[in-house]
Amino acid sequence: MSRMVIIGAAQLGPIARAETRSEVISRMVRLLRQAAELGVDLLVYPELALTTFFPRWYMEDEAELDLFFEAALPNPAVQPLFDAARALGIGLCFGYAERVDDGGNIRRYNTSIIVGKDGTILHKYRKVHLPGHAEHEPWRPFQHLEKRYFSPGMEGFSVASGFGGMLSQAICNDRRWPETYREAALQGAEVMLIGYNTPRHYPLAPEHDHLQDFHNHLCLQAGAYQNGMWVVAVAKAGCEEGCDLIGESCIIAPTGEIVAQTKTLADEVICYPCDLDRCGEIRKNIFNFKLHRRPEIYTHLTIR
Amino acid sequence: MSRMVIIGAAQLGPIARAETRSEVISRMVRLLRQAAELGVDLLVYPELALTTFFPRWYMEDEAELDLFFEAALPNPAVQPLFDAARALGIGLCFGYAERVDDGGNIRRYNTSIIVGKDGTILHKYRKVHLPGHAEHEPWRPFQHLEKRYFSPGMEGFSVASGFGGMLSQAICNDRRWPETYREAALQGAEVMLIGYNTPRHYPLAPEHDHLQDFHNHLCLQAGAYQNGMWVVAVAKAGCEEGCDLIGESCIIAPTGEIVAQTKTLADEVICYPCDLDRCGEIRKNIFNFKLHRRPEIYTHLTIR
Repeated sequence: MSRMVIIGAAQLGPIARAETRSEVISRMVRLLRQAAELGVDLLVYPELALTTFFPRWYMEDEAELDLFFEAALPNPAVQPLFDAARALGIGLCFGYAERVDDGGNIRRYNTSIIVGKDGTILHKYRKVHLPGHAEHEPWRPFQHLEKRYFSPGMEGFSVASGFGGMLSQAICNDRRWPETYREAALQGAEVMLIGYNTPRHYPLAPEHDHLQDFHNHLCLQAGAYQNGMWVVAVAKAGCEEGCDLIGESCIIAPTGEIVAQTKTLADEVICYPCDLDRCGEIRKNIFNFKLHRRPEIYTHLTIR
Repeated sequence: MSRMVIIGAAQLGPIARAETRSEVISRMVRLLRQAAELGVDLLVYPELALTTFFPRWYMEDEAELDLFFEAALPNPAVQPLFDAARALGIGLCFGYAERVDDGGNIRRYNTSIIVGKDGTILHKYRKVHLPGHAEHEPWRPFQHLEKRYFSPGMEGFSVASGFGGMLSQAICNDRRWPETYREAALQGAEVMLIGYNTPRHYPLAPEHDHLQDFHNHLCLQAGAYQNGMWVVAVAKAGCEEGCDLIGESCIIAPTGEIVAQTKTLADEVICYPCDLDRCGEIRKNIFNFKLHRRPEIYTHLTIR
């Protein structure tokens, strides 16, 4: 199998709270068709791609909250995206809010899946590093209630084989943590697929708001280089329900170089032919884990 | 005690193989006097600051090798630096090759120390991530025999209190590994002091030679931001015995921003007033380890 994969990043502009699943899916299918013309093999959409970023609102009513969640995937509303992708022979990666009913025990996750060219789900990941807060904090201009609405993924980081290589996923805040990339790389990941919704304004340290784009790329590029992996990071961007979200979706080579980047804060597709064999330039040399890592002296990393 | 520390980086230009310790110490004292005029509290020199970067040569004769090592510190050749620093009330950090004779059992380390304003040694660190190779590889334009000449530090990363905060050290290749900064930060480090000798040419992947400066800053800036710590990184720079070493020594704020950087490849002092309380902007918020890290799911980081 070829080790060259054309990976696309399908940035989404803002999604209004009132926008229906079908409306969003239509936008996603439009981007999919653009990607098909570019020869894309695998198209990556943002975190929580099917709805607005709802953790910005405090909701007490579970029925209201559940409007943003999927009880199963695919489902009738999302099926047209699966159908179009399969017809075009393109794989998908996108995030969604997952609701699990385990015999009456309800759990909600911030989840992402990779779908093969044949429509089968190759990999599922539940967000590990949930940011924000669990209680209503009315002083904030908008809430960030991921710690309230989601359970953290307990499965950790994992990999799946597909598209000729080893793939892994992370979601939004995960990308800031070096542990994310390392856990995946130690399992052989060659490509890390990441969606994000990142407000420009961070209420806890607003003096850093002007650094949001820099911090986004800094973490992504370091993760790519320090693990010799391709990183594809895809934003929901623009002013969504009064909240400015950063863009600058990008594809990053295993050298840490940004090789493709969006130029808008709206729906936009970029792509790059990713040669998975290039991971070896880094992983067989400067970051040869077996030769140079020293796990026996990393005595603090996993203290609980 | 004040939490504002003026930290200086004393970049060294090339040191010739024939240069004596006294000649090098004279250069270091000259930089120390410049730092004194800038009000520096703590001056940081490169890795293996007292000699040329000798791992570039294959040596079979142990007596020849030991010419580059210190059996004790301070010693008569180095004493003038300690004396001048104490007289000026400036702390020091510098790297050297350490030879330990443990009852006839000889061990050699790539070591760095922090010296307080009163001349006492506050912290000693032995390099954990030794790069390069252990055998003579004549195909290389120059050797990188750190794995031959040095034992890896078994003490790991540690911190010491001094200059009003918590300090840690790392050496050269350590700075590329995110584990380095994390191990120190989990022990409370607020400042990471790093010296390096980094050839522009990397014989294993020469196609990345043009990225050496980028990779240097990428790792340092990510380490600073992802751990909310000040990072001071100091090069031995310039063309040393025919080998080009990168420069771009820098001081990096806990936001990952480079706030001071050298402009030459020669002996040069830069400094910055580092407010250690600024670490909290990051560590109490976006990288609040207690709130957001997930050590229970980091199951691969410490597998040997």
